[in-house]
Amino acid sequence: MILVADNLQITNQTIQQALDKMEPESIQKMVKKCVAAGAEAIDINSGPLSRDPEMKMAFLVEAVQDGTDLPIFLDTTNPKAIEAGLSVSRNRTIINGFSLEPVKLDTILPIAKKYDVDIIGYLLYPNGQVPSNEEDRLNVAIDLLGKFKKAGMDIQHLIIDPVIVPVIWENGNLQDMGILSVLRNLPDLLGFPVRTIAGISNLTTGRGPRDKRLLVERAYLAMLAASGLTMALLNIFHGETVQVARACNALANTKIFSWEELP
Amino acid sequence: MILVADNLQITNQTIQQALDKMEPESIQKMVKKCVAAGAEAIDINSGPLSRDPEMKMAFLVEAVQDGTDLPIFLDTTNPKAIEAGLSVSRNRTIINGFSLEPVKLDTILPIAKKYDVDIIGYLLYPNGQVPSNEEDRLNVAIDLLGKFKKAGMDIQHLIIDPVIVPVIWENGNLQDMGILSVLRNLPDLLGFPVRTIAGISNLTTGRGPRDKRLLVERAYLAMLAASGLTMALLNIFHGETVQVARACNALANTKIFSWEELP
Repeated sequence: MILVADNLQITNQTIQQALDKMEPESIQKMVKKCVAAGAEAIDINSGPLSRDPEMKMAFLVEAVQDGTDLPIFLDTTNPKAIEAGLSVSRNRTIINGFSLEPVKLDTILPIAKKYDVDIIGYLLYPNGQVPSNEEDRLNVAIDLLGKFKKAGMDIQHLIIDPVIVPVIWENGNLQDMGILSVLRNLPDLLGFPVRTIAGISNLTTGRGPRDKRLLVERAYLAMLAASGLTMALLNIFHGETVQVARACNALANTKIFSWEELP
Repeated sequence: MILVADNLQITNQTIQQALDKMEPESIQKMVKKCVAAGAEAIDINSGPLSRDPEMKMAFLVEAVQDGTDLPIFLDTTNPKAIEAGLSVSRNRTIINGFSLEPVKLDTILPIAKKYDVDIIGYLLYPNGQVPSNEEDRLNVAIDLLGKFKKAGMDIQHLIIDPVIVPVIWENGNLQDMGILSVLRNLPDLLGFPVRTIAGISNLTTGRGPRDKRLLVERAYLAMLAASGLTMALLNIFHGETVQVARACNALANTKIFSWEELP
């Protein structure tokens, strides 16, 4: 399981201010903290960037890649920002992401084709809603792969996000248990070892005591690892969650187990 | 996932001394500690009890059931001890256990039939060795169910233990990952929702720093929970492991998720 830091978010005041002032230092500082905490890739969650999307995303990507050579995820719905990010990136760059929503199929997927890069496909209905059960998620995955191929994409570029739902939703926990089975079934269903990613913080969105939210987060992360999840997008500063991820990797690794591999 | 305390072991000096002196107090004290820590059943691991097996197991069972009315697992290879335990038990009692080893089929399985109780069946070869891969484990499970039916047992009394191996064995971690798939496949393979149990402490047997062993234990426990394990036999004083087990239960529970359910 590869750990992707979700810490670089525009909703974080430090990041917002750095962007407003175009001062890369605090972004680089956070990126270095993420790397030190175990990040293996950095998600740039810039929001829609409705004003000056090109300049702003280019600034963010430059700031991040001045701090690390780890892969970068461009996490925005704004196609202009995505293209600007790709045009300046030297690091490996992944688009995050598209879905069956027509606007995304029309405006984001073609950018992945143009730049020949990996892209995350969300298991969402064409109206952007979360599927309500396991069967629907699998059907959406089939449709998504169909659109992907139709766009001329190499299937090796697809990374599927099954969309974790908050446990506190009605039946949320059962939907999340169903997602484990979706993850296990996707490779057989789609006919190739498709990579997968999940946004862990979705799980405990909303109210709830911090220690309990972290407990549920690390329990579910191990469940995801057991189900073959390829990448986890998470708050890399959640130290115990990162520890559990490493323990899962030591267990699932084909190398001989060694206590030395563990934090 | 039901938590079965493995703390009542003859290798524990307190228990050994209580048994030697036939003084139940320290056993009852430990049982109450186990219950307070979250135990939902108590495993009495008495060892083979080669001298006075009947008297000693009867004493142990009486001592435990004077402290709790939780179910009791009779964890010994000695058929005389098992029968003595069953004959004095008032609590629900489960035999732990049998396997394809001829001596166990001949001497232990008939006791389960006679007393009409649940019994744990270990996935071991007839020579008592651990199967070396997933396929062999599933074949052993089929053979075990065959012997179970042949003995006239109601299949609802079977609880299967897939036998976790130490992670530090060569390929131990990969065998343990394979066990997750065995757990998922057993119900379909055997044709009924067979209950399962696993001895968690096996995982980290041997050398290894305590904090890392506990980390791996709780990561793997969540994986087992995701794979549908019915009961976990574990050191109930490992507080963080118990917390993770509760988080897993809250996730997998068909009740509406609530933060209140968590420790």
